[in-house]
Amino acid sequence: MPMQDTLVNVDSRRAETETLGPIERYLTTLLDEFRSLDDGAVADYIPELGKADPSLFGICLVTANGHVYEVGDSARPFTIQSISKPFVLGMALEDRGRDALLARIGVEPSGNPFNAIVVDEASNRPFNPMVNSGAIVATGLIEGPSVAARQDRVLDSFARFIGHDVEVDEDVFESERLTGDRNRAIGYLMRGFGMLEGDCDETLDLYFRQCSLRVTCRDVATMGATLANGGVNPMTGVRALDERYVPDVLSVMSSCGMYDYSGEWVYRVGIPAKSGVSGGIVGILPGQLAIAVFSPPLDPQGNSVRGVRVCERISHDLSLHVLRVHSTIASVVRRSYDGAAARSNHVRPVPDNEILDRDDRAIVVHELQGDLYFASMEAAFRAIADDLAGRRYVVVDLRRVVNVDNAADSLLRELAATLEAEARTLVLAHADVLGPETMPAETATRFVDVDTALDWCESQVLRAARPALVPVVGRSLAGQPLLYGLPAEQLAVLEAAATVQTTAAGEIVIREGDPADALYFVLAGRVSVRLVLADGRRDRRLAAFGPGLSFGETALVAGGVRTADVVTDEPATLARVALDDLRHIGEECPSFMATIYENLARQLSTLLQRANAQVRALDP
Amino acid sequence: MPMQDTLVNVDSRRAETETLGPIERYLTTLLDEFRSLDDGAVADYIPELGKADPSLFGICLVTANGHVYEVGDSARPFTIQSISKPFVLGMALEDRGRDALLARIGVEPSGNPFNAIVVDEASNRPFNPMVNSGAIVATGLIEGPSVAARQDRVLDSFARFIGHDVEVDEDVFESERLTGDRNRAIGYLMRGFGMLEGDCDETLDLYFRQCSLRVTCRDVATMGATLANGGVNPMTGVRALDERYVPDVLSVMSSCGMYDYSGEWVYRVGIPAKSGVSGGIVGILPGQLAIAVFSPPLDPQGNSVRGVRVCERISHDLSLHVLRVHSTIASVVRRSYDGAAARSNHVRPVPDNEILDRDDRAIVVHELQGDLYFASMEAAFRAIADDLAGRRYVVVDLRRVVNVDNAADSLLRELAATLEAEARTLVLAHADVLGPETMPAETATRFVDVDTALDWCESQVLRAARPALVPVVGRSLAGQPLLYGLPAEQLAVLEAAATVQTTAAGEIVIREGDPADALYFVLAGRVSVRLVLADGRRDRRLAAFGPGLSFGETALVAGGVRTADVVTDEPATLARVALDDLRHIGEECPSFMATIYENLARQLSTLLQRANAQVRALDP
Repeated sequence: MPMQDTLVNVDSRRAETETLGPIERYLTTLLDEFRSLDDGAVADYIPELGKADPSLFGICLVTANGHVYEVGDSARPFTIQSISKPFVLGMALEDRGRDALLARIGVEPSGNPFNAIVVDEASNRPFNPMVNSGAIVATGLIEGPSVAARQDRVLDSFARFIGHDVEVDEDVFESERLTGDRNRAIGYLMRGFGMLEGDCDETLDLYFRQCSLRVTCRDVATMGATLANGGVNPMTGVRALDERYVPDVLSVMSSCGMYDYSGEWVYRVGIPAKSGVSGGIVGILPGQLAIAVFSPPLDPQGNSVRGVRVCERISHDLSLHVLRVHSTIASVVRRSYDGAAARSNHVRPVPDNEILDRDDRAIVVHELQGDLYFASMEAAFRAIADDLAGRRYVVVDLRRVVNVDNAADSLLRELAATLEAEARTLVLAHADVLGPETMPAETATRFVDVDTALDWCESQVLRAARPALVPVVGRSLAGQPLLYGLPAEQLAVLEAAATVQTTAAGEIVIREGDPADALYFVLAGRVSVRLVLADGRRDRRLAAFGPGLSFGETALVAGGVRTADVVTDEPATLARVALDDLRHIGEECPSFMATIYENLARQLSTLLQRANAQVRALDP
Repeated sequence: MPMQDTLVNVDSRRAETETLGPIERYLTTLLDEFRSLDDGAVADYIPELGKADPSLFGICLVTANGHVYEVGDSARPFTIQSISKPFVLGMALEDRGRDALLARIGVEPSGNPFNAIVVDEASNRPFNPMVNSGAIVATGLIEGPSVAARQDRVLDSFARFIGHDVEVDEDVFESERLTGDRNRAIGYLMRGFGMLEGDCDETLDLYFRQCSLRVTCRDVATMGATLANGGVNPMTGVRALDERYVPDVLSVMSSCGMYDYSGEWVYRVGIPAKSGVSGGIVGILPGQLAIAVFSPPLDPQGNSVRGVRVCERISHDLSLHVLRVHSTIASVVRRSYDGAAARSNHVRPVPDNEILDRDDRAIVVHELQGDLYFASMEAAFRAIADDLAGRRYVVVDLRRVVNVDNAADSLLRELAATLEAEARTLVLAHADVLGPETMPAETATRFVDVDTALDWCESQVLRAARPALVPVVGRSLAGQPLLYGLPAEQLAVLEAAATVQTTAAGEIVIREGDPADALYFVLAGRVSVRLVLADGRRDRRLAAFGPGLSFGETALVAGGVRTADVVTDEPATLARVALDDLRHIGEECPSFMATIYENLARQLSTLLQRANAQVRALDP
C-alpha cells in the first residue's frame, strides 16, 4: 500500500526527476525519508572504519536478469567487511564440499555477538560461517598451493561475482591487521580445536584482506543478483559459484546473516541477507533480485540503521518476502493441441489429410514453459497423463523450457516409460535443453522442432493406415487438386503449355523477391517453402509439397513478387505453367478460369480453416 | 540423483505396484528404506501418547493445486499436538493483527527446549509462538465472547484448513489436562507477565484441546497445502487464513519450527516445517506443495526420527529447498504482437485495412501471464517500455494473469501514467483480475477481451486518419469487394436476384447447422459471426461485418451446413442471394463465376495471410 501511494503521488516531484523511472523514483523517496534517521554510530573498533562519512547513503536494486536501479551514493567505495562471509563460504564449499565444511563449521544461529569466542560445545565447531570464528575457519578451507594462490582464488572469485576486478583497501587492511588481536585469538583457538590447519597468520591475513575489499553498493547488489541468478553474474554471464551451493549460502544467510536480529529479520523482511560493519547490507530474493543499501551508522547489533529500515520498507512495499506464495506451477503447460492444429507444414494429398483428419486424436502436442522442477513437472505430468485417451504420439515441446532439474528429468523418463508400457510414443521437440545424456535416444524420440516432430508422427500414422504411396512420375496433371473438374481437352491444353524441369536437393526453385509469374505442380520429389528468419542464418519451413500438389498458385490472386524461397528437399520433377499462358487459355475459355479459381478458393478455405484452428489452439 | 536412480530402477517392483504412479512408487521406496530405522522413542510424558504404535509410518504429499499422493499409514489418526501451533498463530494474527501479536510474543529462535519456562528478558515475551509458552499466549489471543465461541472459532478454522470437520480425542485431551502442570505453570507465568489475559484455565483448556485434535497424515498435508496455496484449501476452494498472514506463519515455522534443529533444518531441508510429539511433521513449499510424515518415535530434540530423515531425503531428491533458484520472471510476457496479428475480428473495408496496414506499429498487444508481483511486473514494465517507438495504443492482456499484488498494481499505474505523459494510451483487456477499485477507469481504458480492445483501438486509429464514413444504404451492390470487376449488366442481374431484409439487434441471421445455401451483403448496420463455446453459456466473436462487406460466401466452396451463428449487432439491412440463383447466373455466363471465385480466392488469401501472421505471432 505505501508504495502504491508513493508511486502515485510522486507526480509533483516529477519535474526534477523527469528522466527517472518509477523504481528509481520510489528508491529516491526512501533516501529522502530515511536520511533524517540519524541514530546509530559508525563502527570504530577498526580505526580506519571510524573515518567513514556517516551521511553517505545509497540504495541499489539489481534484478536476476541484470537490470540495475540505483540512487544516492551507490557508487561510493567502502570495504566489504562481513558481507564477504557468505561468498567465502561459497568458495570453501566449492573447494571442500559439504561434508568437509559441516565437519568444521555448524549452521545454527549462535545467539551471541559476531566476534564472540564461543563454539558448539558438543563438536567444538564455530556455530556458523557468518560469525568471525566460522568465517576464519571457512577462509582456512580455501584451497591453493601457496598463500598467493589462495589470495588469487579469493580475488578471482569476487571479481566473477562483481563483474570486474576488485582491490584491497590497503589502509583498512593494515588497520584490521594491526588491531585484529581478537580475531587472532579466535584463529589460534580454532587451530587448537583442530578446525583450522596450516599457517594461522597466513589465513588471518587472507581473512583481513577479504574483509578489506573495496566495493560499492552497486557491486554488492550485483554480487547478490549473481546468487539470485543461481550463481551466474547476470551482466557478464560468467558463473561465479557452482549452482548446487547457492541454496547452502542463502540458507546460512537466512538463519544467521543478521546476527541476533536474524529471526525477526526473517519475519519482518524475509529476504536472506548479510550485513557488514562498514554499513552495507545485501538481501537476495532467489530468482528475482538483490537489494543493497549502504549507510555507515550501525545499531547495537552491528547492522546499518538505515539499511535495516530501508530493507524492511522495501520488503513490505514491494511484497518481497521469500515465503510469499506465488503460483509458479499453474502455467507450466503453455498449451496443448491436437487435430487440425497439431499438423506439420507438410502439405499432403487429400486422401492422406482425410486419414489424419479422421484420426485426429492420435497426435497431441503439449508445450511446456519455464523451469521444470518437481512441482511444475508434476503438474505437467498429470496434465499429460489425464489426456491419453486415443493418443498414440505424445509430443512434448520443450522450446520454452529454461531449465530442467534432476527431479523433473526423472519424471520425464517416467513419462516415457509409462507411455511405452501402453504402446504410446513420447516424442520430444527442442530437447536440447535436456543435454545429450539426460534423456537417451532410446527413451524418447527427439526432433529439433515441433514441425519435424509432427511430420514424423503423421508419417507413422499414415504408414499404419495405408500401403506406401507410389510416387507419381510422368507429365500428367490429372489428379492435381487445383485442376479438379477440368474437362480432358482443357487439361490437355494446360499440359501442353507446361514445361517440365528437374531440380537437385538444395536447389532453389523460387527466390524471395522474384516476380510471381508462374505456378508449379510437383510430379515427383519434394520441395518446401522456407522463410529466412530475421537473424539471416536460420530458416523456417512454412510448407512442404510432395507429388500431386501445386505451389506458387497464390500468384493467381496476389501477383507481385514471391514472399518466400522454395527449396528442393528431395530431387524433384516439376511442371511449370506461366501465368500468362494460363490467362491466355482462360481468355479463350472462361469456364477454365472459373474452375481453377473455385479449386483455389477451396484450397485456401481449407488452409484458412486449419490456420484458424491453429490460432484457436494457440489462443484458446 | 538418488531419485533418478530410484525412479528408473523401480521397474522390477512394478508388478506389485502396477496401479501406482511414479510419485507414489518413489514415496513407497522411502517407506521401505526408512522403516528399518528404529531409533528414538515414542513420547510418554502424556500417558495416552505412550500408547502409540511405533511401527506406524505414513507419508503424504499434497500439491498446491490439491493433488494427493499418499503411501503407508497416511490415513491413521493421531493427535496433532504442536503442529497446531502455526495454525493457531494464524488465527491469533487474524483476530488481533501483527502489532498486538508481536507485543506479546517474539519471533526469535529460543535455543531452549519446547517446554522451557524462559522469556526474552528485555520484554518478558515468550521467544516465539512455536514453543509452548508462545503458543499458550497465542491461544489466549483467540477472540470470542465465550469459551465455547473461542473453541468453535478454533475448530472451524482447523476444519477449513483440513476440508472436513475435526474432533478432539477426548482421552488424549483428558490425559493432557491431567498431566499438564508444567503448561499450567507457563500459563500463570505468562499471565503474571501480562502476556495472557482472562481466565487462565479456560485458555489452557483450549490449548490442550487444540493439541488433542485427531488428524491423519493426509489431513496435515492438506493443511500444509492450504498454506502453500496462499491460505485457500485447494480441494474445497475455501479460504482458511487471510493471505497476508501466510508469510508470517511460514516465517516463524522457518526460523523456529523444528526446535533446536531449526538452523540445520533450513540448511539441510530448506522447507518451513513444524513437528509434533505424536510423531507428525509437516513441511510447506509456498506455491508448490506440502509434505507430511507420520512416525511416532522421536529424537532427543522431539522431532520424529523417520520424519526428519524422510523430509531430508525428499528435499534432496526432489530439489525442494525453498531457496533454490527458479527463474520465475522470464516468462511473464507470454507474447507481444502488432501489425496484422494485432487485428480485431471486425472485418473492415479495404481502404480501412490499408490505413491499418500502413500504420501497423500504432497498436501493440502484450500478453502477460502468471502472478504479477514486483519482480515479474518489473520485467514486464521494462519489456513494454523498451518497445514504445511508434506505439499509440498499448494493449495489456491480463487474461492469463492469476494474481496481481500491490507492488505490481503500482507499477501498472505507473505504466499508465508514463504512457499518458507521452500521449500514448494504455488499454487493459481482461482487467477483471485487478478488481474494480485497484485500477480506476480514468487511469486506463478497460475492455472485457482483446478483440473488443483491438476493435476500439482500430476505430481510434481510423478516426484520426480519415473523415467519418457515411454508412451505405440502398440496394446497390457496387463496391462490394466480392463483386469487383463484374460488368454493370451482370451486377444488375445479381441485384435483381437479391432479396433485401432488415434485422433487429440480437436477431440471428444464420444459425449453426442451417443449410449453407446463400450469401449475404451488408448494406447497413453490423452483424458478427459467433461461435458458442463448449460451456454453452459464452460465445466468441469470430468476425464482425459492416456496410460494404459480404458474409456466408464460403458456402460457395465449402457447401454443407453453417458452422457458426451470425447475429445482428446493430440493426442491419442485408441483401441475400441464394446460391442456386448465383449458380444459375453463372451457368449462363462462365466469366461471372470466374470473377466471383477470383475475388473470393483473393479475400481468402488475405485472411489466410492474416491468420498465418497470427500463428507466427502466437508461436514465434
